[in-house]
Amino acid sequence: MKFGGTSMAGTERIRRVANIVRAQAANNSEVAVVVSAMAGETDRLVNFCREANALYDPAEYDVVVSSGEQVTSGLLALTLQSLGCKARSWLGWQMPMKTVEAHSKARVSTIDAPDMIASMEAGEIAVCPGFQGVSDEGRVTTLGRGGSDTSAVAVAAAVKADRCDIYTDVDGVYTTDPRIVAKARKLKAVTYEEMLELASVGAKVLQTRSVGLAMKAGVRIQVLSSFVGEDAVPADELPGTLIVSDEEMELMVERGEMERQLVTGIAHDKNEAKVTLTRVPDKPGAVADIFAPLADASINVDMIIQNVGRDKGETDVTFTVPGADLARTQALLDDRREDIGFNRIITDSKVAKISVVGVGMKSHAGVASTMFSALSDRGINIQAISTSEIKVSVLIDEDETELAVRVLHTAYGLDAAD
Amino acid sequence: MKFGGTSMAGTERIRRVANIVRAQAANNSEVAVVVSAMAGETDRLVNFCREANALYDPAEYDVVVSSGEQVTSGLLALTLQSLGCKARSWLGWQMPMKTVEAHSKARVSTIDAPDMIASMEAGEIAVCPGFQGVSDEGRVTTLGRGGSDTSAVAVAAAVKADRCDIYTDVDGVYTTDPRIVAKARKLKAVTYEEMLELASVGAKVLQTRSVGLAMKAGVRIQVLSSFVGEDAVPADELPGTLIVSDEEMELMVERGEMERQLVTGIAHDKNEAKVTLTRVPDKPGAVADIFAPLADASINVDMIIQNVGRDKGETDVTFTVPGADLARTQALLDDRREDIGFNRIITDSKVAKISVVGVGMKSHAGVASTMFSALSDRGINIQAISTSEIKVSVLIDEDETELAVRVLHTAYGLDAAD
Repeated sequence: MKFGGTSMAGTERIRRVANIVRAQAANNSEVAVVVSAMAGETDRLVNFCREANALYDPAEYDVVVSSGEQVTSGLLALTLQSLGCKARSWLGWQMPMKTVEAHSKARVSTIDAPDMIASMEAGEIAVCPGFQGVSDEGRVTTLGRGGSDTSAVAVAAAVKADRCDIYTDVDGVYTTDPRIVAKARKLKAVTYEEMLELASVGAKVLQTRSVGLAMKAGVRIQVLSSFVGEDAVPADELPGTLIVSDEEMELMVERGEMERQLVTGIAHDKNEAKVTLTRVPDKPGAVADIFAPLADASINVDMIIQNVGRDKGETDVTFTVPGADLARTQALLDDRREDIGFNRIITDSKVAKISVVGVGMKSHAGVASTMFSALSDRGINIQAISTSEIKVSVLIDEDETELAVRVLHTAYGLDAAD
Repeated sequence: MKFGGTSMAGTERIRRVANIVRAQAANNSEVAVVVSAMAGETDRLVNFCREANALYDPAEYDVVVSSGEQVTSGLLALTLQSLGCKARSWLGWQMPMKTVEAHSKARVSTIDAPDMIASMEAGEIAVCPGFQGVSDEGRVTTLGRGGSDTSAVAVAAAVKADRCDIYTDVDGVYTTDPRIVAKARKLKAVTYEEMLELASVGAKVLQTRSVGLAMKAGVRIQVLSSFVGEDAVPADELPGTLIVSDEEMELMVERGEMERQLVTGIAHDKNEAKVTLTRVPDKPGAVADIFAPLADASINVDMIIQNVGRDKGETDVTFTVPGADLARTQALLDDRREDIGFNRIITDSKVAKISVVGVGMKSHAGVASTMFSALSDRGINIQAISTSEIKVSVLIDEDETELAVRVLHTAYGLDAAD
């Protein structure tokens, strides 16, 4: 069970979390809980570090910022004890949660936690601080902001959990953003790949890295809401959305627990920006000259289109980057204008990426053409297209985001019955 | 070097501490620093624990409250780095600072810190969180409130430090409280025993336990002020008060660095309360009946006098206890009135204990009689007396505290020259 910073913000809320944990433990379960720091606490600690040293040593940064989760794990153990449960905290170095030593953005390497498992088998609830680990050199590490989801999946893998329940402020994964489409439906299950595609295009329920780790380790995740009112019930009786392997999804369909869907969900992302370089020489190596420096600067280029230009031997190149990297992208390319040989650089951050996602499209053609004609019927202009095995994305004018999402939600038959 | 919570309260103050540390390190020294949590932080964390669980598990309490020192040790390491020093933090479990597992009031057993010593020899400043340790079972422990002084002495012993500099909000140990006697003088040195007697009667510069450990481990302590203005200078050039062994003190006197004194200081303590039981049967075992239950309840009885009462076979028994324990003492004795067989219980918390302390009195008679006549000359009534090898204490009316201290300070020739 994993609880985020909003759920852990203060002793009153920690008591509500403890009630949820107790209900699950009472339901014949051995339970490990992973917790975030109180909301706002990590920011406070990060600010201290910045004040102390603008160019901070990530090893000492980790010592400072990991303390927030240490506090909440101790407090949750205490609160569980006050409710009559046996519980104890297991800090990153106590488990140990071994990570590769890349301070402030470490990756979990192994958790070999025989003592913790023995304690759980003896009926003690294990309470683990998220976000923190320990390096081979015995130093405190952290997994990067939002790393507690990853901690939870790693702990679930280590204790061979039946399920990793991630409690959030939403009660599951929806076919699309319910704030845009009132008829959006909560999904009973999605596959890891679908979740990754949905997350990467803006449905920010889970940290992407945690889904990748769950897929690799075969951990079943359940996303569900921590806002369950006064009477805490075990998660078994309050299902959210399961995130499972392709195989399990196949079994669920065979058993009639899930309907087979061509498209699982529609995601949108307004944080993209479009860049066009005009009159780039149409010769081998020209495109590499553009994208190599961006890759070196860790700028993620997504959609790429090359149009034949007005003059022979020249072409326009269009691509998208994260909006936050637009200024850097422009500066990098301006510096290389001579080498690359383009004429003008045109940028547009008023664009949105709309994606339809579903494992079903692996075996079915026609998903993309349904998308194009549904959008075209409503006069929505497609500026770029990219596809993967289980996703089709298009770039459109940002102002048409909501309209496009609604049109596609209906076109793929995802609207809930009235 | 040890810095308390006031010195560590915020990144601005931590920068001042870092300047002091850097000045010392630049003075051809290998330095380990022990730090407290930011002022107020430990209280905040203790309150969280109380809210979570009124009867808290001390093991989890330790996990929560030890985080305050973790934060300041990381921040001081970062700040030292920003000033161009090499520095790293060593948490209790990293050193390791092994303690006997008595959570929330652990005692240091051993520190065997070869890695930390190697790092210091390589020129890195070691920054250690005070107050925290680790048990043989690998759990976080804390040394009890104010335990950071003890941590500092333990670290000093482990690294075989020449000196343990404890920075406080006073600049040394004085012959008496300078707020009472304007002519009080800062002492160049006192012995461990003198410091223990001065501390136990109210001169709260250092935690008593830390002085006991220093005496056992032969660690020379220096008490000095952390408020040194903008220009940080190494402690070698800014002496406070040294706390040393009898032997070193003897050497300092022989070398003419110290004058031989009969009395080193005058301490006062208004936190005592006087209890009188009237008409206690004057028979063997009666006194044991009174004090055994108080000892069982961990109430520290200090001065004891027995007066013959008005009637034969009966006696009045008077003693002092800490003012905070007065109510408990009264309740315990009331419960046993029948068994003990006393008539009335009379209490008085408007008393003060005045002590003259000095190793010199071991070899000189007349110290006590000087005290009694000096007080009697000013009409100050002595209600009780207790003595040790290097201390004479009297109990007087609380209103006469300041007068008594001034009279004695002059009587023993301690006043500074004008």
